Amino acid sequence: MCNEIYLDNSATTKPYDEVNDLVYDINKNFYANPSSLHSKGIEAERKINSAREIIAKNLGAEPKQIIFTSGGTESNNLAIRGYLDANQRRGKHVIATKIEHPSVLEVCRHLESTGYRVDYLSVSHAGLIDTDELKSKITAETTLISIIMVNNETGSIQPVEEAVKIKNAVNPDAVIHSDAVQAFGKLHLTPVKSGIDLLSVSSHKIHGPKGIGALYISDKTRLKPVVYGGGQESTLRSGTENVSGICGFGLAAEITCGNMDSNGKKVTGLKRFFLEKLVSCDFKFKVISNEKASPYILNISFENLKSEVLLHHLEARNIFVSTGSACSSRKKKQSHVLQSMGLPSSIVEGALRFSFSAWNTEEEIVETILALQEIVPQIQFGRNKQR
Amino acid sequence: MCNEIYLDNSATTKPYDEVNDLVYDINKNFYANPSSLHSKGIEAERKINSAREIIAKNLGAEPKQIIFTSGGTESNNLAIRGYLDANQRRGKHVIATKIEHPSVLEVCRHLESTGYRVDYLSVSHAGLIDTDELKSKITAETTLISIIMVNNETGSIQPVEEAVKIKNAVNPDAVIHSDAVQAFGKLHLTPVKSGIDLLSVSSHKIHGPKGIGALYISDKTRLKPVVYGGGQESTLRSGTENVSGICGFGLAAEITCGNMDSNGKKVTGLKRFFLEKLVSCDFKFKVISNEKASPYILNISFENLKSEVLLHHLEARNIFVSTGSACSSRKKKQSHVLQSMGLPSSIVEGALRFSFSAWNTEEEIVETILALQEIVPQIQFGRNKQR
Repeated sequence: MCNEIYLDNSATTKPYDEVNDLVYDINKNFYANPSSLHSKGIEAERKINSAREIIAKNLGAEPKQIIFTSGGTESNNLAIRGYLDANQRRGKHVIATKIEHPSVLEVCRHLESTGYRVDYLSVSHAGLIDTDELKSKITAETTLISIIMVNNETGSIQPVEEAVKIKNAVNPDAVIHSDAVQAFGKLHLTPVKSGIDLLSVSSHKIHGPKGIGALYISDKTRLKPVVYGGGQESTLRSGTENVSGICGFGLAAEITCGNMDSNGKKVTGLKRFFLEKLVSCDFKFKVISNEKASPYILNISFENLKSEVLLHHLEARNIFVSTGSACSSRKKKQSHVLQSMGLPSSIVEGALRFSFSAWNTEEEIVETILALQEIVPQIQFGRNKQR
Repeated sequence: MCNEIYLDNSATTKPYDEVNDLVYDINKNFYANPSSLHSKGIEAERKINSAREIIAKNLGAEPKQIIFTSGGTESNNLAIRGYLDANQRRGKHVIATKIEHPSVLEVCRHLESTGYRVDYLSVSHAGLIDTDELKSKITAETTLISIIMVNNETGSIQPVEEAVKIKNAVNPDAVIHSDAVQAFGKLHLTPVKSGIDLLSVSSHKIHGPKGIGALYISDKTRLKPVVYGGGQESTLRSGTENVSGICGFGLAAEITCGNMDSNGKKVTGLKRFFLEKLVSCDFKFKVISNEKASPYILNISFENLKSEVLLHHLEARNIFVSTGSACSSRKKKQSHVLQSMGLPSSIVEGALRFSFSAWNTEEEIVETILALQEIVPQIQFGRNKQR
């Protein structure tokens, strides 16, 4: 059996050794409560603010525009619910795409149950929204538009900057939120320059610890908290700060963003290599991710098989992939993202997500392709029957 | 200068070495997303469930009754808002004490802004609620009663079990929530037996990592989420689980609860020793914590001085204490807890919280008393003028 081949980096990433060391050091030596008045508290607070500066710098933002949360899901909740709660008189219309992460979609469903109208933008076969449809949906009542920057299942990159321009032309008072969890550390994000008002990022997708995320909030954007209490994080996120998690996130962001271009180049090469090798395989497949998608995500459907079966065969060879988003993979429901792309059920059923990190190698891709070559024909419905 | 003397254990505690090691190991070796379908995901999920079993066992509860959150603040928010959201037709009346933690009080203030009526129970000079007052406030409209188990500033232990009985006699449909953040690992908690419906606990108060807490939810109690998304934690707390934090919390709970009685004995001795030594000092003071308070917390007011000044003099000698709760200590407002006890402003102004852990020693207490003997007379208003 080969060494572990981890191709589920969109679900979560292995933390950097340096991050694990820092988390350990902070837990051991800087354990005070950052709200404590004494010097040990102030020391802990300084550690947090250094991490805040790193996140801000890598978003082209100011430290005061960055709020730490417990993760991408909470960032999305805070962005949307926090903004709408603080701006209830602005209107009760929200726009989101059909391919948002559940932490946006479930918030939208909750909003619908409390009197909001939500329009869900459809996507093309390539998994992209239609900016004309967006334009047609924006009204004077539209308060918030949420568009996922890089879709977590297919890697499709949405035209968020164009969406901002359209929004500004039709209803400049509406705000734009983008779930950039799969984009941070992989695309150059500049929400201030792009006119994005709210932007969610997460630590554990960029080799940082789990349980930590951040929300960029533009100066003009006012939120109410989702979690009330002691008033930490400029009153927007109460609760004793997860100091070691925040510091680990800061370091992970520094390393990942510092290597963004070389990582991107490497991963682009890996994805191309994967696809080239795949072409020579003796089975049919359909590449679901569009050509301009994030190089970190490759969604492929294998015909006449259930991707979950393929996943388990691969894991028996120490190769770890995903059938869709980790969040929904246990729910046995078909992917809402792939369904929104108008893909037939048979394609959706056979879809597997390979998601890369800069730690993956060509050798691992070769091993994976060899495994697919062996497994796929064995488990395809039609072929099985013929035997 | 003496070695560091950390007497701010109610703000946060130094994590156990074993906990730091475990957090490191989990981050390094069990980094998969617990929602991932593959074996690495299932392995991570098992780690979470082992921790859940530990927390449950130490609360005399079932694992399915334990939901992990990002901390005590979020547990309090989820308990109160989650229950009220799920039971909107039950009535719009809430009861809480005046000495709740801000993560309960601020939720109550938010509730008041959304149509709820909240009664705040007063407390005696000893910092205790009056169960007759509680009884008189419960109506058929009362939906939820929140009573902090051990107050974080004074250590006063509230009669929560008696409150349950009163509630059951007057309105059995109301639920009881208790913020047990300062009680877990220190008092034997059995919410099932006691009839407590919702109970909040936190990791970093018992030598576990920050950014993790849990909520006990009785079987009959239905909640709605505060954070929506992928449906983790039985849909009540979405977001990729903070696996290492959860495991660290589990281990910290195992160690702390396993040593609860010996720790309690040690800390009770330390507190008694502290008070005995204090009596022989050449300055006036008032013990604010009542005699039956938690041995882990000793709140003392020094006359004619500002406790913040004393705090900084102590930290110059490497002794770390607190003027009140960490959350509010930066806000320069007088403690709402001490004010509720009817203490005059001069007493509140001079109040300092010494909070212990089983790691503190008699030698540290001797050092602290020596420091107080030197500093207090120097900084008292009256005495300064005489010189």
